[in-house]
Amino acid sequence: MPTIPDRRVDGGPALSAPEAIAHRRATRRFDPARPVPDGALEQVLHLATLAPSGFNLQPWRFLVVRTDRNRQKLYECAFRQPKVAEAPVVVIVLGYHHPHRSHLDAMIEQQKTLGAIPESGVAELRARATRTMERVPDPALWATRSTMLAAATLMVAAESLGLASAPMEGFEPEKVKEAFGVPNDHSVCCLIALGFAAEEKPFPGRFGLAEVCFEEHFGQPWTLGESE
Amino acid sequence: MPTIPDRRVDGGPALSAPEAIAHRRATRRFDPARPVPDGALEQVLHLATLAPSGFNLQPWRFLVVRTDRNRQKLYECAFRQPKVAEAPVVVIVLGYHHPHRSHLDAMIEQQKTLGAIPESGVAELRARATRTMERVPDPALWATRSTMLAAATLMVAAESLGLASAPMEGFEPEKVKEAFGVPNDHSVCCLIALGFAAEEKPFPGRFGLAEVCFEEHFGQPWTLGESE
Repeated sequence: MPTIPDRRVDGGPALSAPEAIAHRRATRRFDPARPVPDGALEQVLHLATLAPSGFNLQPWRFLVVRTDRNRQKLYECAFRQPKVAEAPVVVIVLGYHHPHRSHLDAMIEQQKTLGAIPESGVAELRARATRTMERVPDPALWATRSTMLAAATLMVAAESLGLASAPMEGFEPEKVKEAFGVPNDHSVCCLIALGFAAEEKPFPGRFGLAEVCFEEHFGQPWTLGESE
Repeated sequence: MPTIPDRRVDGGPALSAPEAIAHRRATRRFDPARPVPDGALEQVLHLATLAPSGFNLQPWRFLVVRTDRNRQKLYECAFRQPKVAEAPVVVIVLGYHHPHRSHLDAMIEQQKTLGAIPESGVAELRARATRTMERVPDPALWATRSTMLAAATLMVAAESLGLASAPMEGFEPEKVKEAFGVPNDHSVCCLIALGFAAEEKPFPGRFGLAEVCFEEHFGQPWTLGESE
């Protein structure tokens, strides 16, 4: 496994996870004159793949767009949001609906090679994963759940290594699929722009735990505090 | 805003984001004798709320289960996976389908108070958010996308502060909703157990970038490297 990155692109130490989580913003504008170094991009993508997923099936597929021509094409599919044309990298984050049909054996093989499953457990895992996955009522939803775990991991990783990011839902999925050749067994879960922010963006706020947490039952008020 | 946590529960420094991402495992078994300190739980939940979401609408709702009685009840809804009964905390991660109908004004007000939007931008944002959200074809999918961003953030935060976690899809959503009073306009996106691992879990492997990344077009091979 590659070594764990410990430096930002500006040479400083990688941010702690709480710092990266707290400093990350949905960047509005990117500096088109500042490219993302190849090494940093590989590190960010690799870290994203370390997210968990149902049965470790890893349904995420990252369609990485860097050329001017293709970023312009994507811009036209994304309501002409300036950041899509400005950011040096835009990742089209896809969720593959049924990786168990094509990648289950490879995943199990890798798990076995790493000693994470004994030979005696392989048949049971294969049978259980296949049975469960074939019964999933909404494969696009299943794929989206795990894929968004990787999307969040990508953005936290990027921030920790000194890169700005911006997740986007504002695009026309059918246009994106048509323009970039995405087949119907993949969902376009989101776009993520990466690069360097052109301006500071103020923190827009979040609801506190009293608003979004319940204790023991739906609607039961949160009585622990909000950490200070 | 609360201060950014910088210590683990064992007193050491909070892990870097790459370390937290790389060390996190889907914990199989938890030590039922080791509770999660209240302060650490608040910190982890607070950090989870810093995830991005569509229109900053924050559809996540964390139903936090800690009592023996309710963890046992949840265990019965989750195919009797031992970890649900063992882990001192299990978060039922819910996604609220239409927060724009109840929380849009409060979110905008907070944004204004923090200086993140001028008064002159409020009406346009309210109109655009309402219009867009009312046209969302699948509100449950919309809610799930953003909620899973918070779920991933929660797990990375937990790992960085010295807590083990385990995401779960293996539960019966209708049973969980019935047992915990969850209304129909919320999805049960996943469960996340938190606590201290009872055993080391080996890394099960991940596909490399050559498998999950495409360059510029679907199916076009990834030619950058895998970071070392």
